[in-house]
Amino acid sequence: MTYCVGLFLDQGLVLLSDTRTNAGVDHISTFSKMQVEEVPGDRVLALLSSGNLAISQAVWNRLQEGLWLDGEQQTLRSVPTMFRAAQLVGAAVRAVFDADGPALRAQGVGFDVALLLGGQIAGQGHRLFMIYAAGNFIEATADTPFLQIGEHKYGKPILDRAVTPQVSLADGVKLALISMDGTLRSNLTVGMPLDLLVVREGTQRVALHRRITEEDSYFRRVREGWAAALRDAYAAMQVPDWV
Amino acid sequence: MTYCVGLFLDQGLVLLSDTRTNAGVDHISTFSKMQVEEVPGDRVLALLSSGNLAISQAVWNRLQEGLWLDGEQQTLRSVPTMFRAAQLVGAAVRAVFDADGPALRAQGVGFDVALLLGGQIAGQGHRLFMIYAAGNFIEATADTPFLQIGEHKYGKPILDRAVTPQVSLADGVKLALISMDGTLRSNLTVGMPLDLLVVREGTQRVALHRRITEEDSYFRRVREGWAAALRDAYAAMQVPDWV
Repeated sequence: MTYCVGLFLDQGLVLLSDTRTNAGVDHISTFSKMQVEEVPGDRVLALLSSGNLAISQAVWNRLQEGLWLDGEQQTLRSVPTMFRAAQLVGAAVRAVFDADGPALRAQGVGFDVALLLGGQIAGQGHRLFMIYAAGNFIEATADTPFLQIGEHKYGKPILDRAVTPQVSLADGVKLALISMDGTLRSNLTVGMPLDLLVVREGTQRVALHRRITEEDSYFRRVREGWAAALRDAYAAMQVPDWV
Repeated sequence: MTYCVGLFLDQGLVLLSDTRTNAGVDHISTFSKMQVEEVPGDRVLALLSSGNLAISQAVWNRLQEGLWLDGEQQTLRSVPTMFRAAQLVGAAVRAVFDADGPALRAQGVGFDVALLLGGQIAGQGHRLFMIYAAGNFIEATADTPFLQIGEHKYGKPILDRAVTPQVSLADGVKLALISMDGTLRSNLTVGMPLDLLVVREGTQRVALHRRITEEDSYFRRVREGWAAALRDAYAAMQVPDWV
């Protein structure tokens, strides 16, 4: 399993992923699920993946090698728009399905992959997409300014209640970490360390790319501070007069 | 879908269930998922159910009619201990499986049911069980003083962080409602109104049994107050010095 979340904020993008992969509960490993393409000042794009690791690595390799799109060989470093970038990722997913789908099906293995693509290309707005196993995709908007892949349920209530496009990047980092913390506690197949990426709107470059480990003192404060804040918040709530 | 939660506290039990049942998204109805047996001063038992409504109603009907256990016809009003009560519920689940399982399988319908059984019989401690579709069961202990059935993920982080056996019944009611609120927001197949039951340890009677509707002013305050408290709590958290 995996948990990845992307926040689509007025100030830019906050992207966070865990690094645990597992084949059963007795075979766990650490793999980054976040790939970044940066041409400073021109573009920055990040791809986060969940599902079968062999599929998501194959998708990334095909994107690196380039795929045929609109009559040209394209990569994430050459596509003219974020919409084309999402189409290119979808084309890579479909190419992997064409190559590996029948063999996976023969082994009774589903074609399980989902991806988040966020970024900005110079002269255009920043955008955030979720690409499905069918290669089609949806885009975050101001109505729902976050997207999640993998084990999304535990970490969703805090996002539902607090994420708006007006949230600052710094607050977005806090909310993504709080959402991840709830997931880490409840699902053993989501694990530390974490990869965090922040892209500030209009810069077309990485503002922050950080590997957050168990020893990270800020994340430790988030974990302890949030649990304490929740306990204080419910303790401060009035008791119903019918109890 | 369904969400039911039971808290096993030193002061007693807090049990909360939603009332929505659905067959597809275009066929939703309201059914109580909480059944209560009370012989004031002698015993109080409550059964909460999730899964296929035909199965859980059949289980309850068989419990009302009585089942053969240890060479005697027993009901929840006659069993001598809570352990026997859990066995009786398991026997009812197995009887329904024997009667309906083959026909369900022939239609491609799984045997989907899970139940929470909580209560107290005079002279014994209060106990809380979760009974599976196989008729076997587990029991809440001080290490994990809550059990959930149905759509449990959205509402679990707050319970993980705040529920201990020392939590008061009044605070338990708040926590169960907060946990339910997060679930209601995220899963359309969990719906109002709610059924709440509180049993105070050592009394063998219902302390509180309340139907909570959309108009309930306290639950409205919980929903609004909790969302505001979360926003305040994350806003008050320090920003990482590396942002």
